Amino acid sequence: MKNILLTIAYDGSGFHGWQRQANARTVQGTLEEALKAVANTAVSLEGASRTDAGVHAIGQRATLRGSFGIPTERIPIALNSKLHDVTIISAEEKPEGFHARFDAAGKTYVYRFAVAPSIQAFLRNHACLLARMPNTDKMAEAAKHIEGTHDFACFQAAGGIPRATTVRTVSGIFIRTDKVSDIAGNKYEEIEISVTGDGFLYNMVRIIAGTLADVGYEKIAPREVEEIIAQKDRAQAGATAPPQGLYLKEVFYY
Amino acid sequence: MKNILLTIAYDGSGFHGWQRQANARTVQGTLEEALKAVANTAVSLEGASRTDAGVHAIGQRATLRGSFGIPTERIPIALNSKLHDVTIISAEEKPEGFHARFDAAGKTYVYRFAVAPSIQAFLRNHACLLARMPNTDKMAEAAKHIEGTHDFACFQAAGGIPRATTVRTVSGIFIRTDKVSDIAGNKYEEIEISVTGDGFLYNMVRIIAGTLADVGYEKIAPREVEEIIAQKDRAQAGATAPPQGLYLKEVFYY
Repeated sequence: MKNILLTIAYDGSGFHGWQRQANARTVQGTLEEALKAVANTAVSLEGASRTDAGVHAIGQRATLRGSFGIPTERIPIALNSKLHDVTIISAEEKPEGFHARFDAAGKTYVYRFAVAPSIQAFLRNHACLLARMPNTDKMAEAAKHIEGTHDFACFQAAGGIPRATTVRTVSGIFIRTDKVSDIAGNKYEEIEISVTGDGFLYNMVRIIAGTLADVGYEKIAPREVEEIIAQKDRAQAGATAPPQGLYLKEVFYY
Repeated sequence: MKNILLTIAYDGSGFHGWQRQANARTVQGTLEEALKAVANTAVSLEGASRTDAGVHAIGQRATLRGSFGIPTERIPIALNSKLHDVTIISAEEKPEGFHARFDAAGKTYVYRFAVAPSIQAFLRNHACLLARMPNTDKMAEAAKHIEGTHDFACFQAAGGIPRATTVRTVSGIFIRTDKVSDIAGNKYEEIEISVTGDGFLYNMVRIIAGTLADVGYEKIAPREVEEIIAQKDRAQAGATAPPQGLYLKEVFYY
């Protein structure tokens, strides 16, 4: 019985999220089917993050437990031959007790806004489209108030798995703007918000992104974010930004 | 009755090509439905190019004939509100006899290769993936033999609309390599082949791309391309490169 840590990227636009469902295409379900075809035996796969429908991953992690004959270093090639919108980046053996989710020490998510692209067709599933440039200096100022250890109840959506505490530590939020090109070569302005923390509440990064957008459009002043956090009231924060802008970038382990 | 020339971009990955089909999602069908919802009357739409399933467009053109009340300059906004993976870039009125396809003086297509991306998930529908870098100097040398007026029967796939002649003029082929990033920020090497001509035979650009890839991998010498064209035999040319790498970039009118 091996315990293998996979690093996985996927284009979330073709999936109803990570977690297996009976009647919908999911990343976990797709990987388990590919594993069955390759390993010819039942395996269990546990993701570090249960990403929602439409959310992408560059560095999702999952532990794969099973007894099968393929050498560990061959697993990415064997699986990738059965996959198209998921890529296995690497596979490494871990001690028996290791678990992709429970042992995660932190994660980085990236949220992408595309500002006023002239052609939306190539971006609509991969960024949140904004009609005009927000004030990113104010967004960066507001982000400083989110960094640190706080009770983040204000940034938690209803409907997630109940948590023992809503206190989390956000170790860093970075905002970067860049002129980039979509896959078809059309140029546009991108705003990338990178959020690193020890753990995240349900929809937390998307609500942070929506709140920072409100700050960028001057509906919320940067220093008001401190008050929003203190009030612990979801209704005071901004809207939940849509899933297609969200990328799970990295999962950290000690 | 107005005759309006539309400029259209689309992500081809969600479509079974341009041309309307009874039981498949196509660009023309999707646009005609959006037009019906917006204009509340039957309209006819004629594309400049009948792009195949999976092929993208940055600058497709189509003439739209009909009597409807929306001012021409409002048509892009009105239609785009009903569309997601198609974008109407512009609309302009043309004289009654003008036809997007019959009046086209030439077109530019771009074919995109992505060389050895570490993560394929974000590229598989938008480029042809190559395992290693081909020799692009040899590809550029071979391209010079394709430029000019020739009988291009060797670059015509079976199954297209029969043509009176297989003589076409290719006015320019340009090959560019660049380090770029996919939408998720993963870097890779891109090879872009831009082909401009007065008209193209069925699958002509994709066969040119496949033939140039064979040259790049030194299966065909650059000067052999002259001989391949002279023989007028499809079997002598390279394979048809897959549709997801092809972009209709521009349609020219006098």
